Amino acid sequence: MTKDLWSDNYASRANGLSASEVRALFAVVSRPEVVSLAGGMPFVPALPKERMIESFNTLMADRSNLALQYSGGQGDPILREHIREIMGLEGIKSNVDDIVITTGSQHGLDLVSSLFLDPGDVVLAEGPSYVGALGVFRARQAHIEHVYTDLEGISPEALNSTIERVQAAGKKIKFLYLVPNFANPSGVTLSANRRAKVLEICRKHHILVLEDNVYGLLYFEDRAPDALRSLDEDGVIYLGSFSKILVPGFRVGYVLAPPSIREKLVLANESAVLCPSAFSQMMISEYLSNNDWKAQIEVFRGEYKQRRNAAQAAMKEFLPDLTTTNPGGGFYLWVDLPKEINSKTMLPRAVENLVAYTPGTAFYGNGTGQEYLRISYSYPTPENIRVGVQRLAKTINEELSTVKG
Amino acid sequence: MTKDLWSDNYASRANGLSASEVRALFAVVSRPEVVSLAGGMPFVPALPKERMIESFNTLMADRSNLALQYSGGQGDPILREHIREIMGLEGIKSNVDDIVITTGSQHGLDLVSSLFLDPGDVVLAEGPSYVGALGVFRARQAHIEHVYTDLEGISPEALNSTIERVQAAGKKIKFLYLVPNFANPSGVTLSANRRAKVLEICRKHHILVLEDNVYGLLYFEDRAPDALRSLDEDGVIYLGSFSKILVPGFRVGYVLAPPSIREKLVLANESAVLCPSAFSQMMISEYLSNNDWKAQIEVFRGEYKQRRNAAQAAMKEFLPDLTTTNPGGGFYLWVDLPKEINSKTMLPRAVENLVAYTPGTAFYGNGTGQEYLRISYSYPTPENIRVGVQRLAKTINEELSTVKG
Repeated sequence: MTKDLWSDNYASRANGLSASEVRALFAVVSRPEVVSLAGGMPFVPALPKERMIESFNTLMADRSNLALQYSGGQGDPILREHIREIMGLEGIKSNVDDIVITTGSQHGLDLVSSLFLDPGDVVLAEGPSYVGALGVFRARQAHIEHVYTDLEGISPEALNSTIERVQAAGKKIKFLYLVPNFANPSGVTLSANRRAKVLEICRKHHILVLEDNVYGLLYFEDRAPDALRSLDEDGVIYLGSFSKILVPGFRVGYVLAPPSIREKLVLANESAVLCPSAFSQMMISEYLSNNDWKAQIEVFRGEYKQRRNAAQAAMKEFLPDLTTTNPGGGFYLWVDLPKEINSKTMLPRAVENLVAYTPGTAFYGNGTGQEYLRISYSYPTPENIRVGVQRLAKTINEELSTVKG
Repeated sequence: MTKDLWSDNYASRANGLSASEVRALFAVVSRPEVVSLAGGMPFVPALPKERMIESFNTLMADRSNLALQYSGGQGDPILREHIREIMGLEGIKSNVDDIVITTGSQHGLDLVSSLFLDPGDVVLAEGPSYVGALGVFRARQAHIEHVYTDLEGISPEALNSTIERVQAAGKKIKFLYLVPNFANPSGVTLSANRRAKVLEICRKHHILVLEDNVYGLLYFEDRAPDALRSLDEDGVIYLGSFSKILVPGFRVGYVLAPPSIREKLVLANESAVLCPSAFSQMMISEYLSNNDWKAQIEVFRGEYKQRRNAAQAAMKEFLPDLTTTNPGGGFYLWVDLPKEINSKTMLPRAVENLVAYTPGTAFYGNGTGQEYLRISYSYPTPENIRVGVQRLAKTINEELSTVKG
């Protein structure tokens, strides 16, 4: 490690940056012999490449000088119309003026956090919660308070008591961060009954809700209950993305926010990147205008459902004693391990056995979670998922026999 | 304006966000009858569209599943090799491991600022300085201290005395921000002699230099002196971009930083956007690999030189008494107005006369600059530049007769 000449110059928040446990795996899992159940990569081979080439050709023929130029900080108006329609599928009524397009929904998270989080502020989150969101909150020096979450999603009772406890301690809660549908990492969906209760509790305590719904349209049987945003226009900031329902490589996400917040978001977006990529936005817009994108989402649903089934079948075959969640959509299965096992320290041995996963500790802001692991079934073939789970079972059984001596 | 339910919840930095004066013009200048000398838009009609279509087709045929997928947070290794070569044209020797690809150089600015700026920290900048950088520094609640700048660039003597004054006042200077080549907004280039002096002064006082060089390769006669980074590897963070030398609509910029800073930059980039767009990066990389990109930059040089000549000729024809800078490259001409005139309050009357410019006040962090304005000649045709300057002359003359009664 080089000596850092500028170590006395960093902002205090620079210390909040740390390599995520997921990231540390990237080098390892790219080896072809390793079955990666770690990263949450969409299955892009299922994309209709020919249709995207057509979209590109039309775009370059009709509007190349706009697509290649700088554009507005709020995002392309035609794409925002499409987004309005997409959000409508989950019960959301919105105004295109209140939509801001971002460089992936991750940047939406970063921008919203930049508007609200001062060092020491509290963010409430499910336990477990999306590792990339925890990283953003930590980088803003916020304190993350996890709220008890079960198979129906976050617990309203636990939410209420956590809010009262944190507020009684004199701390400022800036928002509740939720992935209500087919959550990353748990795969759990917040029940309709609890959605109403969560919103009621947040309204009562004047807590803003940050609803991150990038998996909602990837359901396998029943669609998820209507979005929280459909029930509360003023108290919810909604984050969406094209990364999971269409294509991650363009980095296009979106935020729907109450008007006063949206105005600040546009300014924050301009300050951060001047404008999101005109080309990326217009490619997606062109594709959506001229293709049956709902049928394409249906294709993805089929791909992911097949993979979830493979993951669950393999778990039943090779690890029948372990409990997992039962995801009705999305990319992830959350596995409860025997209490003797630490998923973080077990990982190198799993990689020796040519399988990778994400340790549960990545999804908690407080160092807990070692008794869980996340399986991501979104990318490998069903056959490779089975092989991966078999290797995982071997690793767990070896680990158990070592621990039990 | 809607009542803001969440006004008590914002982070303190949210107050630092304000609509730039440049931005407020966007709606106005998009009217086709207005000649806009305001925005700094590259002349994208000069791009080789057929070559870009070829690059796209090759990319989709060979590597579509990589181009459409998530990618690494530091950016595409092949593109980083190209960037290394591009920076070499300005004397920079670099290691690809020290290059980080960003969502335009604006995001590079934002990420570097996020690593270094705490509220109350001081940033030194040329006077005038790039409006988008000032916005980023303000959003981080930094104090901007302008340093006297003349036709040879920033003054070393003024730099030294400013540093001593600010440090004596007990304030922490985090970096010096410079656009050394064909600066935005002044068009001025820092002389070779002063480059060495500026670096020496910064080293003496342990001040980091942030060198923003997005116009350097767009010279009209002589190329600019070697980059500051070529003279100091440890004390300079270098920002570059494809927006001016190739295409802004993909949003691809880059940062070259000392290793310890670069490590933190990659983490900050991942936290903010997970990864820059794989598709955008690979499109540029594909284009650079298979085309004579230096000849394309030469095409741009010709386009912009022709426009600079038109702007200077029109100034001589219609406003012969005014002094301007004499840009040897880039997009901008900086105009010194009669002292009776306030460029900010004059702007609405200019727009009535169907011409737009950017008031000098946009480029100062302290409210000064009303006696200057910026002409951007990069986008309009030479004929329209002449018409625009003629209208500007009419506006200034009307303004003078009003003021003088």
